[in-house]
Amino acid sequence: MNVAVVPVPVGRVEGCAASRADDLLAVEEALEIRLGHRSLSITMRTPGNDFELTTGFLHSEGMIRHIEQIRSMGRLSDGGANVVVVELDGELRAPVQAQRNFPMTSACGVCGKASLQDLEVNACPVLPPDDIQLSPEIIHRLPDALRSAQSIFESTGGLHAAALFDLRGELECLREDIGRHNAVDKLVGAALLERRTPMSKSLLLVSGRASFELVQKALVAGIPVMAAVGAPSSLAVATAKRSGMTLIGFLRNGRFNVYTGSHRILGLA
Amino acid sequence: MNVAVVPVPVGRVEGCAASRADDLLAVEEALEIRLGHRSLSITMRTPGNDFELTTGFLHSEGMIRHIEQIRSMGRLSDGGANVVVVELDGELRAPVQAQRNFPMTSACGVCGKASLQDLEVNACPVLPPDDIQLSPEIIHRLPDALRSAQSIFESTGGLHAAALFDLRGELECLREDIGRHNAVDKLVGAALLERRTPMSKSLLLVSGRASFELVQKALVAGIPVMAAVGAPSSLAVATAKRSGMTLIGFLRNGRFNVYTGSHRILGLA
Repeated sequence: MNVAVVPVPVGRVEGCAASRADDLLAVEEALEIRLGHRSLSITMRTPGNDFELTTGFLHSEGMIRHIEQIRSMGRLSDGGANVVVVELDGELRAPVQAQRNFPMTSACGVCGKASLQDLEVNACPVLPPDDIQLSPEIIHRLPDALRSAQSIFESTGGLHAAALFDLRGELECLREDIGRHNAVDKLVGAALLERRTPMSKSLLLVSGRASFELVQKALVAGIPVMAAVGAPSSLAVATAKRSGMTLIGFLRNGRFNVYTGSHRILGLA
Repeated sequence: MNVAVVPVPVGRVEGCAASRADDLLAVEEALEIRLGHRSLSITMRTPGNDFELTTGFLHSEGMIRHIEQIRSMGRLSDGGANVVVVELDGELRAPVQAQRNFPMTSACGVCGKASLQDLEVNACPVLPPDDIQLSPEIIHRLPDALRSAQSIFESTGGLHAAALFDLRGELECLREDIGRHNAVDKLVGAALLERRTPMSKSLLLVSGRASFELVQKALVAGIPVMAAVGAPSSLAVATAKRSGMTLIGFLRNGRFNVYTGSHRILGLA
């Protein structure tokens, strides 16, 4: 029994013919992340991998840089499965509290920023130089590798997936969630928890579109190449360009577009 | 020239063949909504219909119920196109400030809620009884009507769409945005600004999946029937059921599933 999926009865209509059937839904529930006694974030997520989600979220938001900065992470003793309580290393608590003093969501990399000016100040990091060279064959293979490893989407059609691959196109890790930002946070959190860092030799593939927030999360994790099955946004492309990331879009059916960082792609370099 | 789209040069790869080409991107930019001098929300959105987005956002969040409660809405005099400043009716200002005292995003209906308990307290309204009876033919027609009216997605593949239809399936209004929540906020805001309210005789169609937040926004607007081209989540279905909404998913290719409120669908009633 997969807790990320629940069965429901539905009325099914095909043309004019109606019938009763059963369907599977992707589970969506709220998760509250607390920093000590303080509520930090509420996000709608698919249950499972909550500690990864919490770790990746704290990292994406710049609150931790290393897993050692998390002193403890656990559930509430009175049984709430939808609350994760984190204690950070004492020395970090002051700057973190100064940085944010209100709840926010992980649905978006900008939420909780107090103004447009704050958003610009929190600029994405510029990637260090590397000598990555990828053949188109490796990139073409990624979506099939993602799909064959994806478990929940097949049954519900309702989840976003994000996967890390090594530079030979071998799958390192895959996570699924009702929120695409959560899928990336879980992926980054898993890498931190398993000490598979830095991610400077990894490729990120996302099952949907490439928004600014996803590019931002990948950049904070130091991922140099990001590919999306769908379209990128203007701000995703501008951000990837400024930070030196290779951003690929519309990766499907043996085709893709390279929007930035084409020097890492053989034949376009 | 459509400001919601920008051209970019790309490297295009088909199989092993690489070439240079031009592509069109959906524009994503941050919009800050201010209540007087106070920053209320920052959301990543596709520019255009910003006053509709602001109005719909304030309505979805329960800050206004009628358009008359907005005393003024405008841009900053020093030229910022990405800031909208709103003044609400004086009598309302106190409860609004009591309700929220921090910035939030429109990307998510839960953001800014201080805890899981707050989220439950802000329960969605229960719809009043109605005698709506829809034939499957009307519902089958909606996606084609949406697609033929959709302008930006065709060129970029990067936008979500939301559309309101009347009970005969005639398109009333369509809005597109990089954020699916924004597309619904723009739609609701347009209806409020044009005084096409209440929306109790309208159907809402969204181009993607049906999340909790989208169902919540539709319920606050009093929309009794919502259809999604993609899958609904478990919480979307639970919320629609509790509020008496008809929720339809996987509406495409002459098929759909009715998850809740099947009494409004002829043949399933």
